[in-house]
Amino acid sequence: MTLRAVGFDGDDTLWHSETRFHVTQGEFRDLLQRHAPEADVDKRLAQMEMANLAIYGYGVKSFTLSMLETAIELTQGRIPASDLEVILGWGKRMLTQPTELLPGVEEALRLVAPDLDLYLITKGDLFDQESKLARSGLGDLFLGVEILSEKNEETYRGVFSRRAIKPEEFVMVGNSLRSDIVPVVQLGGRAVHIPYVVTWEHEHVPEDELPRQGWRRITSIAELPEVLKDL
Amino acid sequence: MTLRAVGFDGDDTLWHSETRFHVTQGEFRDLLQRHAPEADVDKRLAQMEMANLAIYGYGVKSFTLSMLETAIELTQGRIPASDLEVILGWGKRMLTQPTELLPGVEEALRLVAPDLDLYLITKGDLFDQESKLARSGLGDLFLGVEILSEKNEETYRGVFSRRAIKPEEFVMVGNSLRSDIVPVVQLGGRAVHIPYVVTWEHEHVPEDELPRQGWRRITSIAELPEVLKDL
Repeated sequence: MTLRAVGFDGDDTLWHSETRFHVTQGEFRDLLQRHAPEADVDKRLAQMEMANLAIYGYGVKSFTLSMLETAIELTQGRIPASDLEVILGWGKRMLTQPTELLPGVEEALRLVAPDLDLYLITKGDLFDQESKLARSGLGDLFLGVEILSEKNEETYRGVFSRRAIKPEEFVMVGNSLRSDIVPVVQLGGRAVHIPYVVTWEHEHVPEDELPRQGWRRITSIAELPEVLKDL
Repeated sequence: MTLRAVGFDGDDTLWHSETRFHVTQGEFRDLLQRHAPEADVDKRLAQMEMANLAIYGYGVKSFTLSMLETAIELTQGRIPASDLEVILGWGKRMLTQPTELLPGVEEALRLVAPDLDLYLITKGDLFDQESKLARSGLGDLFLGVEILSEKNEETYRGVFSRRAIKPEEFVMVGNSLRSDIVPVVQLGGRAVHIPYVVTWEHEHVPEDELPRQGWRRITSIAELPEVLKDL
């Protein structure tokens, strides 16, 4: 069936996100190692984020709260409040940095926009994602914006229903196999995977759990307009 | 024109919210006065929340981050990390408490549900609001859920467009004049105001800025089914 609508993930598909978490996490590691040289900071922070996911959800505010909790726990409360204030500042910096588009994003969107309805479909923190979109300058290209607390078959089904989209007419473009590719293909849609340089552990999918067809992988969004023509 | 759809605010309209912030803020005041007896904790926290609103948006995670920042600032960094850990715990408690419905809510919703399309239209943190709705047991009564980062004419217009609702067929029910009543009436819809026992300062509207008609005030949601019949 002919394509009618294309959904784009935001973080690490249209704009940089995970590298910013990595940069901050590197600073966090350095800070904590001054107080707890033996600690495996990355491992403990990852565990804390997973434990808090059901309470906080995704996003920078959740990440900041998990960093603070990890810092207090790993130092048994010995970390001075002034260092925790530094961590609060990192969170604010992440929330206010300019949105940095990946190469070729704007051109690719402008090439597909005349033929297809464009939707931004992201997960994470509502306020932060709206703010990033506003700062991206891409807002006018999208017919609709869907910010989901989680991307799975159920929530994509909700998008299709609200937007009156048939899965067979829809293609999802994103960097996460778990959030952008697998659920959409399972529902009968198509998908294009564009890997990002870094992927959050949580988003990995074992190769043998991937759908065999219904999706393709490209290395840059610049290839997207061509690929959509013979998907 | 006949009513077709009714929107309900969540926090302090269907379930208790602001009282929980007040309870936590009371504990926060007590904690800080041990370290900074002269400080006007409530005033400084309110200023911090307003200053951070454009960065964090609404919700419990934002409130928690603002409490932490206020605590560090008011004590000039003298507060021990163990006390900041207590504040982190308050945030988690607020996010995981059972959703406590206001009296008469479930009965009122069940009375209007056969005749009208029900929508939940709240602002705040996406993850937190979805979680509260899930814990409320009311999810199945709503045809749709809209969680907005801000409630104003523009965002209500977006809801009307996505849901194919004409403003003349719509009534909004909520406790906030600023967020639930004024913008909807301005757009040509109707509104029912149900004041809550506590209102966040930020949601106040001076009497002379209120619309003259198009809305009513009731004292309990139990009156809603009758009021909707002759609105």
